[in-house]
Amino acid sequence: MTSHEFFMDLAIQNARAMKGQTDPNPLVGSVIVNENRIVGIGTHLKAGEPHAEIHALRMAGEKAKGGTIYVTLEPCSHHGRTGPCAVAIREAGIKRVVIATLDPNPVVSGNGVKILEDAGLDVIVGVRQEESRRMNEVFNKFIVQKKSFVTLKAGITLDGKIATHSLDSKWITSEEARKDVHHLRNENMAILVGVNTVIEDDPELTARIPNGRNPIRIIVDSNLKVPLDSKVVVDKLAETWIFTSQNVDLNKEKKLLSNGIKVIRTNGSKRVNIEEVVEILGENLISSILIEGGGTINASFLENKLIDKVILYFAPKLIGGKDAPSFLEGVGVDKMRDAVELFDTDIIQIGKDFKLTGYPMYTTNEGS
Amino acid sequence: MTSHEFFMDLAIQNARAMKGQTDPNPLVGSVIVNENRIVGIGTHLKAGEPHAEIHALRMAGEKAKGGTIYVTLEPCSHHGRTGPCAVAIREAGIKRVVIATLDPNPVVSGNGVKILEDAGLDVIVGVRQEESRRMNEVFNKFIVQKKSFVTLKAGITLDGKIATHSLDSKWITSEEARKDVHHLRNENMAILVGVNTVIEDDPELTARIPNGRNPIRIIVDSNLKVPLDSKVVVDKLAETWIFTSQNVDLNKEKKLLSNGIKVIRTNGSKRVNIEEVVEILGENLISSILIEGGGTINASFLENKLIDKVILYFAPKLIGGKDAPSFLEGVGVDKMRDAVELFDTDIIQIGKDFKLTGYPMYTTNEGS
Repeated sequence: MTSHEFFMDLAIQNARAMKGQTDPNPLVGSVIVNENRIVGIGTHLKAGEPHAEIHALRMAGEKAKGGTIYVTLEPCSHHGRTGPCAVAIREAGIKRVVIATLDPNPVVSGNGVKILEDAGLDVIVGVRQEESRRMNEVFNKFIVQKKSFVTLKAGITLDGKIATHSLDSKWITSEEARKDVHHLRNENMAILVGVNTVIEDDPELTARIPNGRNPIRIIVDSNLKVPLDSKVVVDKLAETWIFTSQNVDLNKEKKLLSNGIKVIRTNGSKRVNIEEVVEILGENLISSILIEGGGTINASFLENKLIDKVILYFAPKLIGGKDAPSFLEGVGVDKMRDAVELFDTDIIQIGKDFKLTGYPMYTTNEGS
Repeated sequence: MTSHEFFMDLAIQNARAMKGQTDPNPLVGSVIVNENRIVGIGTHLKAGEPHAEIHALRMAGEKAKGGTIYVTLEPCSHHGRTGPCAVAIREAGIKRVVIATLDPNPVVSGNGVKILEDAGLDVIVGVRQEESRRMNEVFNKFIVQKKSFVTLKAGITLDGKIATHSLDSKWITSEEARKDVHHLRNENMAILVGVNTVIEDDPELTARIPNGRNPIRIIVDSNLKVPLDSKVVVDKLAETWIFTSQNVDLNKEKKLLSNGIKVIRTNGSKRVNIEEVVEILGENLISSILIEGGGTINASFLENKLIDKVILYFAPKLIGGKDAPSFLEGVGVDKMRDAVELFDTDIIQIGKDFKLTGYPMYTTNEGS
């Protein structure tokens, strides 16, 4: 590890610690070093408050002069509440700027670096770039594409099942893994399931952790089959939005509306149009969605290439059963070469279970 | 790590290096230490040749006197070609014996330790016990129960599939993982598949590695559907044994026999009796079987609680498909509490894939 990486890692740690409290802003951390001593640290705490660099510069005070600033994201060039950070860095007398990654927004990307270089500062870009990008993967997609970042999560047996053939599913994964899922829910703005999950499990779909923030509960329900006494309809623990088709039972819709439930009709005549669901959520500034749907919902998101990240909790268990439901149903791909491959995979042990994370790469199948 | 563990690890490394060449004897390694210097190392090389301790004592010569011997398995008490090792250790003037694990055979277990303790030597048992037991897991089962050690192996997608819905299966796992499978085949005395695997893939089922030893190919084929031109029937690269039912086509059987294929009729009237297959293989001194069957064969071995070890190669791919075959089909368990749990799980990365190893624990379901 170089000393650049050492200081950038500290900046990343401080940035990450703010996960969930900076929305809609990204996580950013900063460290200022002078004569090999850390003279300031900073992190972005909350939208509307100073950027990470400003906090670090304030802590460093006069000691910033002649020093090196590490920042996980390119310093901004626009005039916010505290003026452009690139200008503040220049004015503080910093000599060298080490940046993990450029601004993901193509409209402003590189502008901060330009201000710094024009002022004669030494600028290095790319230290811990991958880690820094991943940390803001939701923000990076949303700011550029205005589309929600979609994570598919499933707790499965080693044979890919989410229940036995008799539909028993309690419990597949360990308590530790289920607790980890509550953190995932806390980090996502919305959680999406199919109506069958509501009918079969009657889940709360909340983040049961200290200080947990409940995501909006999204139910995909083509024919408004959701039971009126289900927890997501009656418990008021979080907002519930139901996406349905044009084939809607107006009476049932009325009852749901009177319960404070939002009912959104997509343009599908009989089935919910999944792509439209994601579009509408993006328009409503829902930057992140956690899919915890059954096998049919999951497969339909995958087929539509809408999944950005996959998180699988594997319980070290075998249940078998040709008819036991898998976390991915539908028709599936025809040839192995059309399989959706996951990249940047990582696997860790949580309790007895294994948590695998990966990023799907969709092939275009041109000419195949 | 204690110094006992340090020296035992060396003994285990030397033992393991002989994997595949000591059958039907177990892997055993030994190290002799005197005044904190290693004065001898030994390993069992081949059945009929000296045990590990004898080699180590010969290397140490006079320097064994007053020393400590480390041995991965309890020294024998019986009169083989070189006399009981326990006696040889005593006569060499060794003062202390550190043993990883006792002899698994209950008839002689503890006898070696008794000889040593009766002679006044200091005996320690249990250093790296688990590692040493696992190293000889096949031997430990076979010597005690006279039954084959059965390993289930499958190369699967993250959704547990072994092929797409159109039965395309080339390739699921990476070249590196497939190479690892050839080592597995080399380590097992027999490899077992269902006849559908032969019909669909026409595999060679050989160990394609340098110095590889091909396992006996076992085909479970209730109605002798095996194609007469399939590789396992015609290529003579290894023995092929076909297990069938009483419902046998005598003409087809004759043709197979004339090709040098062994045909064994189990007592099942229409379906092969799987438990009988394992029994017959055990009687034929086949100490280890690698199951590479399709989902039906795999499920039937699991349902009959015949699997001792599971090795799964997960390719980081998703294919989906309700009808795409999984590596475990059949009916499956009814309730999650009846799931077969794997213990001592371990996961490593091989190329892009993940290799998971675990040991099933079968519950008796008493009173549930």
